[in-house]
Amino acid sequence: MNEVLTDDRVWIGFDLGGTKMNAMLFDSAFGVRSRRRKKSRGSEGVESGIERIVASIAKLLEESQAPREMLGGIGVGCPGPLDLEEGVILEAPNLGWKNVPLKKALEKEFGCPVFVCNDVDAGVYGEYRFGAAEGARTALGVFPGTGIGGAMIYEGKIFRGKTGSCLEIGHVPVVPEGALCGCGRRGCLETIASRLALSAEIAKAAYRGQAPYILRVAGTDLANIRSGTIKEAIDAGDKIVEEILREGAQQLGNVLAGAVNLLAPDVIVLGGGLVEALPKLFLEEVGKAVAKQVMPSYLKTYELKIAKLGDDAGAMGAAAWAKHSAEA
Amino acid sequence: MNEVLTDDRVWIGFDLGGTKMNAMLFDSAFGVRSRRRKKSRGSEGVESGIERIVASIAKLLEESQAPREMLGGIGVGCPGPLDLEEGVILEAPNLGWKNVPLKKALEKEFGCPVFVCNDVDAGVYGEYRFGAAEGARTALGVFPGTGIGGAMIYEGKIFRGKTGSCLEIGHVPVVPEGALCGCGRRGCLETIASRLALSAEIAKAAYRGQAPYILRVAGTDLANIRSGTIKEAIDAGDKIVEEILREGAQQLGNVLAGAVNLLAPDVIVLGGGLVEALPKLFLEEVGKAVAKQVMPSYLKTYELKIAKLGDDAGAMGAAAWAKHSAEA
Repeated sequence: MNEVLTDDRVWIGFDLGGTKMNAMLFDSAFGVRSRRRKKSRGSEGVESGIERIVASIAKLLEESQAPREMLGGIGVGCPGPLDLEEGVILEAPNLGWKNVPLKKALEKEFGCPVFVCNDVDAGVYGEYRFGAAEGARTALGVFPGTGIGGAMIYEGKIFRGKTGSCLEIGHVPVVPEGALCGCGRRGCLETIASRLALSAEIAKAAYRGQAPYILRVAGTDLANIRSGTIKEAIDAGDKIVEEILREGAQQLGNVLAGAVNLLAPDVIVLGGGLVEALPKLFLEEVGKAVAKQVMPSYLKTYELKIAKLGDDAGAMGAAAWAKHSAEA
Repeated sequence: MNEVLTDDRVWIGFDLGGTKMNAMLFDSAFGVRSRRRKKSRGSEGVESGIERIVASIAKLLEESQAPREMLGGIGVGCPGPLDLEEGVILEAPNLGWKNVPLKKALEKEFGCPVFVCNDVDAGVYGEYRFGAAEGARTALGVFPGTGIGGAMIYEGKIFRGKTGSCLEIGHVPVVPEGALCGCGRRGCLETIASRLALSAEIAKAAYRGQAPYILRVAGTDLANIRSGTIKEAIDAGDKIVEEILREGAQQLGNVLAGAVNLLAPDVIVLGGGLVEALPKLFLEEVGKAVAKQVMPSYLKTYELKIAKLGDDAGAMGAAAWAKHSAEA
């Protein structure tokens, strides 16, 4: 009999975002048996945060009628920086958390192995296992949002740097003496091509009266200029918004061309809210910029794709990575 | 008893360069038992080339009195592009060779496993096993020469892209609409920071009368402006030569900063004739440029080092890779 069929353990994937938590419970073939979403409410403190995570997981087990002893493991995708070995969130500015020993807390509570990993790593691993990069030998994932996250799956495993974190494609230097970046440097790719950077450009255009749709529905507050609004503005004919987006995608493509020359991936996955709102625009502009600048001999060696799993990539990837790690 | 002590097989590493061949025979603990250097003479044709390689290897075995049945394997580092699986040199412009089935020819002749790998991969693997990057988890090697070669050893193995080749750091796009590169694109790092590019800048300076030492000993022919000449010119007080070199090293450092943000290596090795002629200058300028632009959290996570094995890195790495692969 096939091992997968006889294995009735369940696996939990938890995506701990700055604003939302997404928790999913899977059977060992990664069918979804139960799921929950909640606000993260990081500002209510670490203890309350861990309690909310524990309660979510307990609820998932209850809903799917899975006894705790059937729990094979828990994977948690977290914002970084992390201590991967110890499973500690060293710092999560969006949650206001520091030095949170998540692995220890969850292992104590649930008595199963817990694997903490970077949220972008989890998402790209999810796409590699179940989505747009399924089965790729080298899958490079890039997710433009407030910053620009990146991750790589290489020969079945999450590629990791010296301190765990790596693939910081948003911090590749692009503009000499450019704008200040969140990381403390200047001119990183994020400063010109993240959703935040593009929203700021759009807000300026709105202020100048060049983006009437934006001005009407979002005003000049860049926090109101979200992915959906940007798409609507382009559909409504705000030409400059489309130009800003195309230029940002091009800049992303320029840096990706260099990354392709270094890593020679077989699949590149673009994801995140903005890309998923404007998949055609990103495929076109990023595709053109990469094709223009990669080594000619690499031209036919990669596929550029849009992520398939949306908000579930992180939880699915975290659960699958936990199973992979527990069984390694 | 220890396996290494009782294993009396020998291993051959062959570095097939555009102008020189370097062949070395090692015992199983990688002590050198015999070595030979020859001109490659690619222009004399493929058959004569393979004969010269076979004769070199036969001579090494003879000199070290190792019978053929003691030969554990042969590793050959070759200029690319290659078919790694089949061990075929697809094209080696410097040798004027195309579609050379080197693995098949050598396996037939010597009856042992033969592993063909990229020459830069072999050199960086050599530094990882026996030189400046010994034992690194992630070792990134960069060798500026006619082009700028790169390779990475990750968790004990040569990192490989879709078609085998990767880490083409010399072809990261740097100057939009810049100078034409050997690869067919424009503005690649090689066009401003390879030894060839720097020699061309130096030749221009000599022509303008700004580099009197160069003008005297090398004239304005960039083919005469080799690594040694460049070092001598700096020592002799050709200020502009030093400036050109420092700027080139900086440009290399800028691109390396981006690569460090992607790969988070623990060791970066700089090598090749030019770097080895001016190690202090390269450590300083590359070091400064990388430190200025990597993510602040990566600042203490990497060491920048100069290669230790010189011209032997390729042959040593190729032999060690052959042993690693044969025993995998």
